[in-house]
Amino acid sequence: MPQLRLALAQLNVTVGDLDGNTEKIVAWTRNAVDRGAQVVAFPELALTGYPVEDLALRGSFVDASQAKLAKLAGRLADEGMGEIVVVVGYLDRAVGTAMGVDRLGRPKGSPTNCAAVLHGGKIVTSAVKHHLPNYGVFDEFRHFVPGDSLQVVRIHGIDVAIAICEDLWQDGGPVAATRDAGAGLLLVVNSSPYEANKDDVRGELVSRRAREAGCPLAYVNLVGGQDELVFDGDSLVADAKGSVIARAPQFAEGAMVVDLELAAPSGTPSGTSADGIRIEHHVIHDEPLAPYEPIAAAQAPRLSDEAEMYHAIVTGLRDYVRKNGFKSVLLGLSGGIDSSLVAAIACDAIGAEHVHGVSNPSVYSSEHSKDDAADLAAHTGLNYRVVPIQPMVQPFLDTLGLTGLAEENLQARVRAVIWMGLSNADGHLVLACGNKSELAVGYSTIYGDAVGGYAPLKDVPKTAVWRLAKWRNEDAIAKGQTPPIPANAISKPPSAELRPGQVDTDSLPEYHLLDDMLDDYVEQDRGSAELVAAGFDPDLVSKVIQLVDHAEYKRRQYPPGPKITRKAFGRDRRLPITSAWREDARKATET
Amino acid sequence: MPQLRLALAQLNVTVGDLDGNTEKIVAWTRNAVDRGAQVVAFPELALTGYPVEDLALRGSFVDASQAKLAKLAGRLADEGMGEIVVVVGYLDRAVGTAMGVDRLGRPKGSPTNCAAVLHGGKIVTSAVKHHLPNYGVFDEFRHFVPGDSLQVVRIHGIDVAIAICEDLWQDGGPVAATRDAGAGLLLVVNSSPYEANKDDVRGELVSRRAREAGCPLAYVNLVGGQDELVFDGDSLVADAKGSVIARAPQFAEGAMVVDLELAAPSGTPSGTSADGIRIEHHVIHDEPLAPYEPIAAAQAPRLSDEAEMYHAIVTGLRDYVRKNGFKSVLLGLSGGIDSSLVAAIACDAIGAEHVHGVSNPSVYSSEHSKDDAADLAAHTGLNYRVVPIQPMVQPFLDTLGLTGLAEENLQARVRAVIWMGLSNADGHLVLACGNKSELAVGYSTIYGDAVGGYAPLKDVPKTAVWRLAKWRNEDAIAKGQTPPIPANAISKPPSAELRPGQVDTDSLPEYHLLDDMLDDYVEQDRGSAELVAAGFDPDLVSKVIQLVDHAEYKRRQYPPGPKITRKAFGRDRRLPITSAWREDARKATET
Repeated sequence: MPQLRLALAQLNVTVGDLDGNTEKIVAWTRNAVDRGAQVVAFPELALTGYPVEDLALRGSFVDASQAKLAKLAGRLADEGMGEIVVVVGYLDRAVGTAMGVDRLGRPKGSPTNCAAVLHGGKIVTSAVKHHLPNYGVFDEFRHFVPGDSLQVVRIHGIDVAIAICEDLWQDGGPVAATRDAGAGLLLVVNSSPYEANKDDVRGELVSRRAREAGCPLAYVNLVGGQDELVFDGDSLVADAKGSVIARAPQFAEGAMVVDLELAAPSGTPSGTSADGIRIEHHVIHDEPLAPYEPIAAAQAPRLSDEAEMYHAIVTGLRDYVRKNGFKSVLLGLSGGIDSSLVAAIACDAIGAEHVHGVSNPSVYSSEHSKDDAADLAAHTGLNYRVVPIQPMVQPFLDTLGLTGLAEENLQARVRAVIWMGLSNADGHLVLACGNKSELAVGYSTIYGDAVGGYAPLKDVPKTAVWRLAKWRNEDAIAKGQTPPIPANAISKPPSAELRPGQVDTDSLPEYHLLDDMLDDYVEQDRGSAELVAAGFDPDLVSKVIQLVDHAEYKRRQYPPGPKITRKAFGRDRRLPITSAWREDARKATET
Repeated sequence: MPQLRLALAQLNVTVGDLDGNTEKIVAWTRNAVDRGAQVVAFPELALTGYPVEDLALRGSFVDASQAKLAKLAGRLADEGMGEIVVVVGYLDRAVGTAMGVDRLGRPKGSPTNCAAVLHGGKIVTSAVKHHLPNYGVFDEFRHFVPGDSLQVVRIHGIDVAIAICEDLWQDGGPVAATRDAGAGLLLVVNSSPYEANKDDVRGELVSRRAREAGCPLAYVNLVGGQDELVFDGDSLVADAKGSVIARAPQFAEGAMVVDLELAAPSGTPSGTSADGIRIEHHVIHDEPLAPYEPIAAAQAPRLSDEAEMYHAIVTGLRDYVRKNGFKSVLLGLSGGIDSSLVAAIACDAIGAEHVHGVSNPSVYSSEHSKDDAADLAAHTGLNYRVVPIQPMVQPFLDTLGLTGLAEENLQARVRAVIWMGLSNADGHLVLACGNKSELAVGYSTIYGDAVGGYAPLKDVPKTAVWRLAKWRNEDAIAKGQTPPIPANAISKPPSAELRPGQVDTDSLPEYHLLDDMLDDYVEQDRGSAELVAAGFDPDLVSKVIQLVDHAEYKRRQYPPGPKITRKAFGRDRRLPITSAWREDARKATET
């Protein structure tokens, strides 16, 4: 059977950085050439970055993408890389078709999400994404018009069909047409965001679609953080029976090279698939390569659930800092578990020397909290400073006479003013340390602990915060390093310490119970009647749901943070602020 | 020709308030009965409120909408209103069709945006929205599956076809099918958000579609504020030639009653339109009414551009306060034009006795600013308080040693802490006073002047702020009232007064020039090359575009405010925070 050496380059690109992304594509093409590959594939929209959002609707941006692609093709040939076949995602527009005409209800300028095939200094063809996701974090009906063809390219005597990301996830379309085309390989370019356990789903999907397509399937994915999305790489190859034969690591930029033996075509693919996909065939080389000795395929070891989640957060934070031009971060260290974990993550992401922790004790701060904050600083080596807040709190109290909740929030807001002042003075990015459980029920002070440019734990439930902290310490011990997080921060009862003796359970149920309920209500979109039927106390269901619904206005102004769960607040779950929908247990059990 | 008396009820409903919305629908049905109408039409999704956003994906919410609709039909009959035909928008789900099956890429539970026809205690039929908008502020592919039929109902011998909002805006579909069906009237239920000058576009659209449908067209629209959207009512009727024969006022809840003479059907509509819309026919009454004396149609006077915009902002603010359960608002009064206009708007929206203005002079505040703030308070009668900030600023300066921009921002943040403290203590909703031009270029202090629950001028360019202030004063003079806004606040050069002698033009171009550029770059999505070609200075184009692009992170955390222009930040214009796309003049003119 004909052979092919394929490089899957999982890159960490930046939205809008056409020049920088081009440099990466050229460098990794050279890497693939050096390793003897005949084909190198880059992720979906690798040239522009992903997701481009409404940049797709700017004509000047689409023009720039088209121009850069043409330049890239020429440059590769000029630099002696004209022979390798390069498959690369970029932004284009529909022309000369019904979809290429502007009209109300269609994205302005008819942008298309494409994968170009480059060879010999030319653009051989371009595949257009057919299935556009418009759910969860995706809004692609807003940004793109769909393609209606399958591009098949004969490379060294093998017909390679090309599809783009969602084309793999939805039934029908390019995958089904690949079988009709009798292709020898289905190559799928992706920018598929991370969420917990998605790697398992992805592996099964690739296996199933390989069987459906009737040929091996190669899957290349983006790596890195972009706003609230993290991409985990995890590129992989399945054979025609669906067995995964090669898999790249998660969260690491690089190229995986795989040698494949593939079926030769029996004729020239043509026609139209059952669901109307037109098959278009292009020939680069009709003849197979002379037989050569294949290299062995690699399978990167899989990460544990905690390791995977921790790496996703580190990646998201590192790229948010770097891609936005920051050099350092600042966070408030309370001695509690959330800020301790964020500090450890920040040190892992950008190095302790670039992390600035500020302890802002109030008159209600406990001695153990102050000690725990200092211990954390000592364990990690971050820059540490103590600024007691009472001298700044007192003038507000004297002038305004605030008490109760207003006084509690005042302390949190004075801390925020300090952090933002230091940020303005020294250019640090401020990190907010709130977790998903707090965000869900509104257990935070708006313009207080909720300030910041990035919130690493925004989508991490409190029970997972504890799991991650324990995992990080155990991982350190296993590696012979100092565990960064003080044991006391993990074991003590959570408290905001904004009044004497306060603990979170004064206002909230125990976190294991709360997180179970939030999983049902937020992640699964279940109604209150279903929660009660599942055994939760009706009064508690009613209380928690009201807290979640009421906190929407706070969540709107919360900093961005990496998507970790199936349903992140904001991009994934978009609800009205003003809503009188009160799905409490009483109403739900009414007839 | 057969006659029909039609009531178009433009209601101000609240998202999620099924009970409250039902009471309004019953009350206005009674009003229509009392006025002798045979048909009353309510807006799109009147029962649930609009837009429901991801509430559409909650099964319990769809269940509740269905159950409420069935109860409403029964209740109307029970209360002696079974004879009037009621057309009302509600949320349903597709069942028994291909679209009614859950699968990836389709909204969970297959929700549908419907208009039910109620008569005699029963649901006669239900029209499903066919064209789903997924651009601008709309995300309806995320929330609904489309309908594929045109519902035609014979009422007193007249065939009435029903369509929903976007069905009118896009070509083909239900409007075209209405002509095929030979209907005597096309009734369109809408929740069409306000934007400046949209009433002109809407009038022309209704005229054109009436001619296309070949029959009169009746258009009923929502009224009121919902998060960042404002609905202006403006219900209207055009005859078969496209002449507008009746028009309701903007921003006023109520019902317009119109008598129409309509063509009798020549047969029973059936078949399928050219673009695949199935025509379904239902008979309530075959026989026309006995002839009666019609009442004259009314045409509400049109508002000036400034009056319309002002009313939109007042409506948005009033409903945000009321629907979120607030009783009062608080804002910082600087003596400048923005806070002065917001104060006037707030007094008009909820009454001066519920408006609390706080003057927070710093050491850099001018005497005229303090005087102007006090004058405004005296003119409007709002609650006024002066809290100098120096005693609270100084301890931060002493502790942290902040200077320059950090010191400037500190003042704004200390003010914010004061406002939020008073809000916590007394339950006021805090208003942010920034305008669209500031928001565009990031000329604000995050967690400082940008704090608040609602930002009335968020989508109002600075030049329009001046126009609105002048209009409000002139309107007061014309009515023999005291102009609320001090003349000096309108005429003086804008300044943030955060350092000695500071004026906005130290950092920004003159606002008339800035607003012209923002109109090109933001509203029209033009590229920098086009701005330069339009005659703007290339260096200034480069500077302004960089400011706009860089300010995205601040805009993400800005409070909601009413959509006024064609392209509001946030819902309408969704860009990455992290983006290296720098569309400056140099790059744009490169070959």
